Amino acid sequence: MSQLNNAIKDLSVVDMIDYLTYEARQAQVLLGQSSHLIRCSALTKIAERIRALSKQIVAANQLDLSNANDKQLPSSFVDRLKLTPERINDMAAGVENIAQMPDPLGKTLSKWNVKSGLEIERISTSLGTIGIIYESRPNVTIDAGALCLKSGNSAILRGGSDSFHTSSFLTELMQECLSYVKLPESAIQMIPTSDREAVNVLLQATGKIDVIVPRGGKSLVSLVQEVARVPVFSHLEGICHIYIAEEADPEMAREITLNAKMRRTGICGACETLLIDKSVSRDLLPDISDSLLKAGCELRGDEEVRKILPSIKKADEEDWHTEYLDAILSIKIVENFETAIEHINKYSSGHTESIITQNKNLAERFLTEVDSAIVMTNASTQFADGGEFGMGAEIGIATGKLHARGPVGADQLTSFKYIVRGHGETRK
Amino acid sequence: MSQLNNAIKDLSVVDMIDYLTYEARQAQVLLGQSSHLIRCSALTKIAERIRALSKQIVAANQLDLSNANDKQLPSSFVDRLKLTPERINDMAAGVENIAQMPDPLGKTLSKWNVKSGLEIERISTSLGTIGIIYESRPNVTIDAGALCLKSGNSAILRGGSDSFHTSSFLTELMQECLSYVKLPESAIQMIPTSDREAVNVLLQATGKIDVIVPRGGKSLVSLVQEVARVPVFSHLEGICHIYIAEEADPEMAREITLNAKMRRTGICGACETLLIDKSVSRDLLPDISDSLLKAGCELRGDEEVRKILPSIKKADEEDWHTEYLDAILSIKIVENFETAIEHINKYSSGHTESIITQNKNLAERFLTEVDSAIVMTNASTQFADGGEFGMGAEIGIATGKLHARGPVGADQLTSFKYIVRGHGETRK
Repeated sequence: MSQLNNAIKDLSVVDMIDYLTYEARQAQVLLGQSSHLIRCSALTKIAERIRALSKQIVAANQLDLSNANDKQLPSSFVDRLKLTPERINDMAAGVENIAQMPDPLGKTLSKWNVKSGLEIERISTSLGTIGIIYESRPNVTIDAGALCLKSGNSAILRGGSDSFHTSSFLTELMQECLSYVKLPESAIQMIPTSDREAVNVLLQATGKIDVIVPRGGKSLVSLVQEVARVPVFSHLEGICHIYIAEEADPEMAREITLNAKMRRTGICGACETLLIDKSVSRDLLPDISDSLLKAGCELRGDEEVRKILPSIKKADEEDWHTEYLDAILSIKIVENFETAIEHINKYSSGHTESIITQNKNLAERFLTEVDSAIVMTNASTQFADGGEFGMGAEIGIATGKLHARGPVGADQLTSFKYIVRGHGETRK
Repeated sequence: MSQLNNAIKDLSVVDMIDYLTYEARQAQVLLGQSSHLIRCSALTKIAERIRALSKQIVAANQLDLSNANDKQLPSSFVDRLKLTPERINDMAAGVENIAQMPDPLGKTLSKWNVKSGLEIERISTSLGTIGIIYESRPNVTIDAGALCLKSGNSAILRGGSDSFHTSSFLTELMQECLSYVKLPESAIQMIPTSDREAVNVLLQATGKIDVIVPRGGKSLVSLVQEVARVPVFSHLEGICHIYIAEEADPEMAREITLNAKMRRTGICGACETLLIDKSVSRDLLPDISDSLLKAGCELRGDEEVRKILPSIKKADEEDWHTEYLDAILSIKIVENFETAIEHINKYSSGHTESIITQNKNLAERFLTEVDSAIVMTNASTQFADGGEFGMGAEIGIATGKLHARGPVGADQLTSFKYIVRGHGETRK
């Protein structure tokens, strides 16, 4: 395979993408019709080989790490790039987890008979070829490859150039496992060049790529959204809201807000703005802000908030639009339920919002009236995750409304077709 | 409304589309949360008004017809443009039919609990704003408006300029009915200019339009596919296949082929290529070709076919790629099941294919191995239609694999969201 990769490397990027997408399409015909057992054997084998080749993976990763150090890349970047034996073990466990999930293909989604006598069934099928564009996080190579394999889709991977050695090694590892169970190796391919033009060509390969999933920060995602002519499953940002409404349980409100903001501040499901109903703000805000400040969170409030918490910074218009991805929270006191909904519908990125209240009527109205991928009552927004949703794993979270919305797992990487069983019916 | 339309007409097309999409978005917030009862009342009212205003509709249509005659447009075009009292009645009945279908919104699509204690539910929601671009068939105005209304979506309609008076009249009629039930009129809008640039702007209005449905011939659809930056539900063509396999019932094979080709030759579900298994070709082809020729169908065959039917024209490579939409059928004798599948996967447009056989094993393999939106056994491809599928009505048929595939009815014009009910859960 390495020899082949070397040959492809000399092609123009247009020819290279042509070649990779053609190979992916051919491989997918077989993969899409393969039994779940075969796909699971390949996944189990991948997990086994990841564990067996742990040292070699670390060695490949070492090449990337030393390049990164030479380039003096920031330590947070190097940390994401680095694979430790523990992280390698986590990757393997993730693949085993995906293997154990039910088959997303061939499921009867619905079934009915019509007057003409035809029996109609809608069943799940694979999508085709999926392109994954990601930053230098080597584990995405495995996650994305495994989820595509599970769902019978060919994967074309394009990781950050700084993880090139690690990603190449992991891709070849997966290809060997495919080959081991007699599935075509080109069901999982990596673009063997760091030329950025290859990404542009991939993003415009209409008819050759069925969907692109960008996984990374806002600059990566916005670039993909801008250039892509093929469909994209993505979210640009997660400006998630907690709304503490009338009849909120004080302790629950405090705990959920603290968790939603501070458990991990850098994930897309982290809360960025707290809305608190005027009717409960004087009672609840002091305790909640205490907890947040103690946990090291910077608070920014509107004028009403600063009447209660005079020492915090003023939040301006910009703050309501900002995904901090950091230990910063903007806080606003809202007049009532309607103004809370209005604020959310204006500033939310359509990712995840949660209401805290014991009032069932308000809770149900919130679930109906907020138009986000995930709407919650009395729970932390940090639950917005495919794993927490019981999907086994996710390739990302989508805020678009077409096809996939919310966590994108194996089920969301499928399409469907109509199967119609007749008995000689002709149409009048 | 007419006064407002006149004011919009003076805007630049960019401002016009900005205005229309903004209004559509505002209207949709209310429409998407309206009760099924209200949406159905509006639909029933539309049907009622169509019947009551039949004469006025004919009069508006007369303006378009006389323009078409002045322009000496072809008679087939004029026929599609023309509304008779009978066709008007059909339009009304279509709307009533849509009204009677179950609510596509707020359906529980799935529901499960996870270990953390959260109760998760996936429910159907409206999509947003849908743009419909169509040719001069006034009934599409009503079909599209009614399906969007049913599914809680705002519609922005753009019909062929030659049906401008009829479409305007019908759009205003629907707007009055929306207003009658206190739904916002701008839930159904028409682009009030025949400037083609407006279509281009609409097709690129990312974030302002959620999906575009082109409805018309190949030139319209390919233009839309080429220019659009927003998602499109469409099929470029319907190169549908019938495969008469081993153990086909001779009479069934003849009847289905005749129906699939000749019932209506101009629809996308019409069969364009007949594949017949070598093992049954000598027995079955003479009868089938007789019936087709008698019905006025031109036959074109490969060399093997012409050994059996020496008088027919030769089919060349071009024929396998051609959607005739006419009384012409290309016929090929295939060596076996595998070569039939190979031919279909190479030449099919992914719309609808049907196998004729009494062999259950072959039938099931066909259903699995053919990757088209609709795959059938022992039935005419002309059943590929939302109405025949029991969907009430369709806005079109999609051959893409994302979101909507096959007939696009009210259910396919929905999205979904995750509703998560918690009890104070925070994430570990």
